[in-house]
Amino acid sequence: MSTPIVAPGLEGVIAGSTRLSRVDGLAGELIIAGYPLEDIVANASFEETTFLLWNDRLPNATELADFQSTLASLRALPDATVELLRAVAAEKTPPMDALRMAAGTLSLGSTEGAENEAATLVARFPTVVAAYWRLLNRAEPLAPDATLGHAANYLYMLNGERPTAAQARGVETYLNTVVDHSFNASTFTARVIISTASDLVSAITGAVGALKGPLHGGAPGPALDMVFEIGQVDRAEVYLRAKLERGERLMGFGHRVYKVRDPRADVLSAAAEKMYRAGGDLQLYDLARSVEGIAVALLAEYRPGRNLQTNVEFYTALLLHGLGLETALFTPTFAIGRVAGWTAHCLEQRDEGRLIRPGSDYHGGLGRQWVAVAEQE
Amino acid sequence: MSTPIVAPGLEGVIAGSTRLSRVDGLAGELIIAGYPLEDIVANASFEETTFLLWNDRLPNATELADFQSTLASLRALPDATVELLRAVAAEKTPPMDALRMAAGTLSLGSTEGAENEAATLVARFPTVVAAYWRLLNRAEPLAPDATLGHAANYLYMLNGERPTAAQARGVETYLNTVVDHSFNASTFTARVIISTASDLVSAITGAVGALKGPLHGGAPGPALDMVFEIGQVDRAEVYLRAKLERGERLMGFGHRVYKVRDPRADVLSAAAEKMYRAGGDLQLYDLARSVEGIAVALLAEYRPGRNLQTNVEFYTALLLHGLGLETALFTPTFAIGRVAGWTAHCLEQRDEGRLIRPGSDYHGGLGRQWVAVAEQE
Repeated sequence: MSTPIVAPGLEGVIAGSTRLSRVDGLAGELIIAGYPLEDIVANASFEETTFLLWNDRLPNATELADFQSTLASLRALPDATVELLRAVAAEKTPPMDALRMAAGTLSLGSTEGAENEAATLVARFPTVVAAYWRLLNRAEPLAPDATLGHAANYLYMLNGERPTAAQARGVETYLNTVVDHSFNASTFTARVIISTASDLVSAITGAVGALKGPLHGGAPGPALDMVFEIGQVDRAEVYLRAKLERGERLMGFGHRVYKVRDPRADVLSAAAEKMYRAGGDLQLYDLARSVEGIAVALLAEYRPGRNLQTNVEFYTALLLHGLGLETALFTPTFAIGRVAGWTAHCLEQRDEGRLIRPGSDYHGGLGRQWVAVAEQE
Repeated sequence: MSTPIVAPGLEGVIAGSTRLSRVDGLAGELIIAGYPLEDIVANASFEETTFLLWNDRLPNATELADFQSTLASLRALPDATVELLRAVAAEKTPPMDALRMAAGTLSLGSTEGAENEAATLVARFPTVVAAYWRLLNRAEPLAPDATLGHAANYLYMLNGERPTAAQARGVETYLNTVVDHSFNASTFTARVIISTASDLVSAITGAVGALKGPLHGGAPGPALDMVFEIGQVDRAEVYLRAKLERGERLMGFGHRVYKVRDPRADVLSAAAEKMYRAGGDLQLYDLARSVEGIAVALLAEYRPGRNLQTNVEFYTALLLHGLGLETALFTPTFAIGRVAGWTAHCLEQRDEGRLIRPGSDYHGGLGRQWVAVAEQE
């Protein structure tokens, strides 16, 4: 027996190999299936990115058209899923809980086989989120529009209006940006589940539960709340200094892996700027940029050596807010993008066929003597 | 930066520390919160075991009575859960899928707070499994009986008859035996999910999905099927030799951690013997014991050096079959026991407050040039 390696939290442990994405936290680079994130964001539809992740190459024109129509044909939800969403909307269940509940039912009406499950999950996630959002707001869910692409149809199902090209591309850029990020906690959850030879719906349902956690995907709201609280740029420094003096964390800054600026923050910032310039609240965008600059400078002053840079949450909030999405939709929308990566990791892990099962140290009692309740004094 | 440790499957990696259980695979010993498994099985009700895991000590008489009545008061399911089970039973959804779907909804009607969520999950799992089993067999679910203990009430809700003391203790022994087992794949899944500061329902829903996999909890049926196929002891050797010659795996033998006989096999074998002697098919029990002996001997001959011993699945199948449970109920019943351990691990991991996030190697493409679909030849 070799000596075991003790690594709580698995920091510094390489749990496996993937061809799906590479995160270089020191260089601030993200590669998605061979392409820098910036190329994906500049060029890809969400359907192309998904095809790329699943097949390790881009589709040709025919393949892309086929893939788009396959996904579009799978968007409708099983009746049992809709009825469940209806029942839980009546209890004001938070959207991420509703997504977890609905995700667990998506084996219903899905053709067997991992690839079919993957397509069904990716196709149906926007329908779940949009249907639930409408039910929560006392509106009936809308049927998906097969003439719209994946991203545009999501906005349509939310609002009942066909989005502008800028809006559709805005949300598509967001979905592409968060599509994959190596072995983050939700992706790793999906891989552990599928490693038992379980099914994709089980794995993705687990991943939704992990993404829900505030330490992972569950906290893009507060970053924007801070910008709103600051309100105008000349109040930013006083506000932020007071927060840092109290030892509080600034939401939207710092990342376990990135020690420089998160490359996703850059592409989302550019996407937000484009969208706000095309007809949004440009003042808000300018305020956010100024707040970001001051925050990074003050973090360097108050937390020296920690390298706390802007993370993906900050511009996620700004971009999605600009698209008219309420804060409660931010993490569910993250899931709509990430599910393509989760399913790709499941297909990859399934082909590996190796159970993920770490060991643990025991620090509990030993040699305790059982005293039955009846014999106690 | 220190050199990362590469450990696919996390074999040989200690991912954390726990006070809940210790598995000594070389000695064949299992400690549950300070007590050898054998003491738990000889003495504990399932409620006592659960209290022990959550509190790191046994309850006194008053605490135990309070805990029993708290759990009993939480057994009923939310209406939305029952309606979901009804809808998916109509589609003949397999019980583990139905359990995953229902588990995801158990935040409904649960009082907030991790301890309340834990109690709700443990209390409701038997109700979910029994209600679904009845719906699948075109019977109405039964209301739980608060005068019965946790284990006895499960059998009652399945069959509509109050179990004998031997039957109730038989299933209770099973639940106690599988209640915890260090960082197995489903427990580890739950810990990864809760490490993002997500909730217990999310974590346990993920764990159900992992337990479903045949490489983890999903395969106790085939071990018994083999015994039935053999039928009589004088056919065992020929049957097993033929299987081994074909290079097939014998279900119910071998374990990633145990290199000697799984201690759970011993206690389940003893429990099965007691139950079969109290009025079951003793011939089947004797046949199973003989098949086990021949199988272990032949495995040593055909797979020398592999140390393939009887695992927990073999006697799980025999015991649960003797209790009148059909094969499709074996893994859901496993989950009814293990959920107490899962919730205990969640409470422990939550107190740790550390994100579980490994790294990964990238072996995909690099420097690929984007060629848009429209520009392809």
